[in-house]
Amino acid sequence: MTQATFYIGIDGGGTKCRVRIEDADGKHLSTATSGSANIMRDMPLAQSSIMHAIEHAVANAPVPIPLEQCVVGAGLAGANVPSAAQLFKQWNHPFHSVYVLSDLHAACIGAHGGENGAAIIIGTGSTGASFIDGKFEDVGGHGFPIGDIGSGAWLGLQAIQHTLLSLDGLQASDALSRATADHFNAKTPLDLVQTCAGFVPCDYASVVPKIAPLLGDKDPAASHLFDQAAAYIQKMADKLIGDNDLPLCLIGGLSHIIAERLSPKTQRRLRNGVASPEKGALTFAKQSLNLQEIIV
Amino acid sequence: MTQATFYIGIDGGGTKCRVRIEDADGKHLSTATSGSANIMRDMPLAQSSIMHAIEHAVANAPVPIPLEQCVVGAGLAGANVPSAAQLFKQWNHPFHSVYVLSDLHAACIGAHGGENGAAIIIGTGSTGASFIDGKFEDVGGHGFPIGDIGSGAWLGLQAIQHTLLSLDGLQASDALSRATADHFNAKTPLDLVQTCAGFVPCDYASVVPKIAPLLGDKDPAASHLFDQAAAYIQKMADKLIGDNDLPLCLIGGLSHIIAERLSPKTQRRLRNGVASPEKGALTFAKQSLNLQEIIV
Repeated sequence: MTQATFYIGIDGGGTKCRVRIEDADGKHLSTATSGSANIMRDMPLAQSSIMHAIEHAVANAPVPIPLEQCVVGAGLAGANVPSAAQLFKQWNHPFHSVYVLSDLHAACIGAHGGENGAAIIIGTGSTGASFIDGKFEDVGGHGFPIGDIGSGAWLGLQAIQHTLLSLDGLQASDALSRATADHFNAKTPLDLVQTCAGFVPCDYASVVPKIAPLLGDKDPAASHLFDQAAAYIQKMADKLIGDNDLPLCLIGGLSHIIAERLSPKTQRRLRNGVASPEKGALTFAKQSLNLQEIIV
Repeated sequence: MTQATFYIGIDGGGTKCRVRIEDADGKHLSTATSGSANIMRDMPLAQSSIMHAIEHAVANAPVPIPLEQCVVGAGLAGANVPSAAQLFKQWNHPFHSVYVLSDLHAACIGAHGGENGAAIIIGTGSTGASFIDGKFEDVGGHGFPIGDIGSGAWLGLQAIQHTLLSLDGLQASDALSRATADHFNAKTPLDLVQTCAGFVPCDYASVVPKIAPLLGDKDPAASHLFDQAAAYIQKMADKLIGDNDLPLCLIGGLSHIIAERLSPKTQRRLRNGVASPEKGALTFAKQSLNLQEIIV
């Protein structure tokens, strides 16, 4: 088999695909970004985004990088669904080898530099995982609207439902309903309904930066909303690190707002992440290859 | 202008289109049913469903019914959206005249036999309206998931979210989570996620017949869920009939469950509906034509 000379880490999400290339000594060589790489939503698009980003990174690298010498760690949205991961593994790729894991798992490994640890992503969506001695355990996630409780999309939907009550005259207008109506430029229920038609999770989450500042004024409705979100994330944290001594990393745009609402006990376990998800995927590929070489 | 000899009432919803034909004396001549007639979702399909049902009803009528002598009242899903209603009015139809109103308004007029009254539809969706001296006032609705609070779809989504918490080990399993998991044949979170992918409102609502029986056992989680639904419908009722003496009619599959959770004051205002939505649409067309003749 061709020698494994280079390592590529991929962080492939619903909107972006980020790629990082290192040599065998861990020296960073190149990075690149392309489009969507969610293998459950669109496998051909995901594979094309991955190839596009890798070819771009290879072209910009300071040394020639033959693809057949590249060990790839692909942290991909949708890879938590076994059927999607299985299909992805059938890819007739040009690389030395490809190891696939979910984008969440890649983020978790990246956050703790390949060591044992837990991570909760709390941005447009919400999901969590722990990584202990090479094994992952997941909690939450599941996608909006049935899952991703406490996420930006969830907060946005709650804020919109709250605002429709006010615009319908079923409850008094308040700072939360005014900020939400203002963000979506809605003066009537129909305005809001027409704006929200066809909304995807990130559209719902778009209101969060407008309502989060209300927390500084201790606005009761906004506080209640974010407290509900934090209560769910607290449950995830308890499940992930309640029975062990793992460090926990919160990742994503809502991390700070949620962190200050977690229990003091959980807050004491919080650590800053040490590396990116694409670096985590790269680390996973390296670990997986080493394990295989030991087995062989 | 051709004489108005026949009256046609249409109840056009997201799944079915029902048609009723009467002569000028109010004698029932024929009925028929066809497919979807939601003019916001699909205008050509709605118009084709309407024509299909009318042609079928005309073919089965005991007397010849020339379309140009028919006054049509079209109670259509989506007609509450002004742009959709406006577009529908441009239809180059073969009838004497067509009067359009929402399916909700048609149901409200039908329920109270053309007299003043209020109606709340509580089935897969939830929405309410009052009809006072020819004028409508709406409350709620707005579509799932941002609106239709307390509806079957809303109840189903809450039940699924509750069940995912249990399947994730974030809360204890209970009768509600077991009934819901059982209905969707889900043993793991992933089972449930894969089943719910691409769910539309009626798919969420499909679990309601399985969880409603838990109310008989005073199951706490199920009771809490239906109490929340009823609290929203109570707000709608207060808005519609709180400041007047209108009778209120609850329409739809969840009417009985919700009715027994409303305040005694509201319960005393409840009436059974006297006629169908298609009869309501027919009555509206008759009233509208008469008003025009008076104006002329």
